[in-house]
Amino acid sequence: MTGKLYGVGLGPGDPELLTLKALRILTSVPVIAWPAPEEGDSFARSIAAGHLPGGQVEIAIRVPMRVERFPAQEIYDRAAEEIAAHLDAGRDVAVLCEGDPFFYGSFMYLFERLAGHHETEIVPGVSSIMAAGAASGRPLSARNDVLTVIPGPLPDDEIAARIDASGAVAIMKVGRHFNRLRALIEKMNLTAQAVYAERVTLAGERVMPLAEVSGDTAPYFSIILIYKGAESWAKPAAQAEAQT
Amino acid sequence: MTGKLYGVGLGPGDPELLTLKALRILTSVPVIAWPAPEEGDSFARSIAAGHLPGGQVEIAIRVPMRVERFPAQEIYDRAAEEIAAHLDAGRDVAVLCEGDPFFYGSFMYLFERLAGHHETEIVPGVSSIMAAGAASGRPLSARNDVLTVIPGPLPDDEIAARIDASGAVAIMKVGRHFNRLRALIEKMNLTAQAVYAERVTLAGERVMPLAEVSGDTAPYFSIILIYKGAESWAKPAAQAEAQT
Ligand SMILES: C[S@@+](CC[C@H](N)C(=O)[O-])C[C@H]1O[C@@H](n2cnc3c(N)ncnc32)[C@H](O)[C@@H]1O
Ligand SMILES: C[S@@+](CC[C@H](N)C(=O)[O-])C[C@H]1O[C@@H](n2cnc3c(N)ncnc32)[C@H](O)[C@@H]1O
Repeated sequence: MTGKLYGVGLGPGDPELLTLKALRILTSVPVIAWPAPEEGDSFARSIAAGHLPGGQVEIAIRVPMRVERFPAQEIYDRAAEEIAAHLDAGRDVAVLCEGDPFFYGSFMYLFERLAGHHETEIVPGVSSIMAAGAASGRPLSARNDVLTVIPGPLPDDEIAARIDASGAVAIMKVGRHFNRLRALIEKMNLTAQAVYAERVTLAGERVMPLAEVSGDTAPYFSIILIYKGAESWAKPAAQAEAQT
Repeated sequence: MTGKLYGVGLGPGDPELLTLKALRILTSVPVIAWPAPEEGDSFARSIAAGHLPGGQVEIAIRVPMRVERFPAQEIYDRAAEEIAAHLDAGRDVAVLCEGDPFFYGSFMYLFERLAGHHETEIVPGVSSIMAAGAASGRPLSARNDVLTVIPGPLPDDEIAARIDASGAVAIMKVGRHFNRLRALIEKMNLTAQAVYAERVTLAGERVMPLAEVSGDTAPYFSIILIYKGAESWAKPAAQAEAQT
């Protein structure tokens, strides 16, 4: 009997946003693995920490985050080997993933190395865009809106084209791209329809109109939402229903 | 003391994909409300059913689903009034929402009527796109992919333009648009990269390559995912990391 690999979504940060399934798996497997920066704490582990029963084998997968060109492949190769050894010995392994594992998650690097040879299950989680939408006080996407999720590192012209073509937009991985993104949104005359959401559901959460953000930097855990359909947002339901 | 309104995301269908927070709120409020078709069971209530303690006041919000032009406004007006009466009397009300409440959810029709006058909290949930991604066995979006969520009822040319501009695509509300959407995807030469996901995480779940779907119809609870980046999907991580 070989073990099973789980990619477990833990939600955006609030430990109460774990699913019952994530909790059951987390607390029953003998081995957990979690990504972490080169030094310091793992965000994924911190979400799960209060739920962990203790006594589990823990595998830290430490990947430098700020380095542009880094041979991360070796790190994931090594982690995959370590995890595979447990699976081969019949021990289930849960990889802790912030948000949803398959939504821009680093779990994919283990998945592509292990899923071909080992039974694997993905446990979906509450994603940070859903949490940001909830905190923003506006439906993220409604009716027949197109919702586009755009990684902030993409170049300006590509981001602008995607925003143009969409009704609702979520920009991920804002972080050190904040200033550039804010200037672009301003140039597109969309600042009034943009919301900035930082550390959503966590201590220190900040959610506010983009126009009110002071300072030129944003932490890694930040998202910008643009509600281009904001004008039609309060449209009578009867009218909207007719479009579905 | 007036009551608080909750929009509670219940996840895509599996009752184990409720969050701990959703469970706590569901089981502690005196009043729950749920959407349902004109006749028959509420999907949202069925997700929560096994968790409900019994003895709660229940408000059914029955909206005909298949009718194109229907004055749904009156139905939501009436439901909002009924809910407001409980809130005014100091009773908390939880509205049960499948998936995430603010991701194409009908909760918005109550939210826009009530949130201005009543304390309101949205509890984000696991969305059906995350669940479909998990079930499909491929990361929904990776690295710097643009992910576009497209409602199936939109016209062909608009859908085609959105697919063209995106790395990863999720088409929602497939249902009776299935045949038209399949033909469009075939015309765009993307059938091999498309996955069909029906009733994800529920009894009767069907997840398969779009090319293998027989029949010309799909139920309302179905999604098509297109992984246009499929070729680059197995790209070495080191290379990909360099792009973030
Ligand atoms: C590598 S992606 C992982 C996303 C994650 N798998 C999910 O489903 O939310 C990291 C990005 O997610 C967003 N993010 C994750 N958690 C967040 C939070 N609590 N508040 C704001 N943004 C968050 C930020 O944009 C961050 O740069
Ligand atoms: C009105 S939208 C609501 C989406 C929901 N709020 C969410 O977050 O998933 C309904 C559409 O969601 C998708 N959907 C919801 N649950 C699903 C499931 N279990 N399996 C497949 N698709 C689902 C289908 O495309 C359906 O037409």
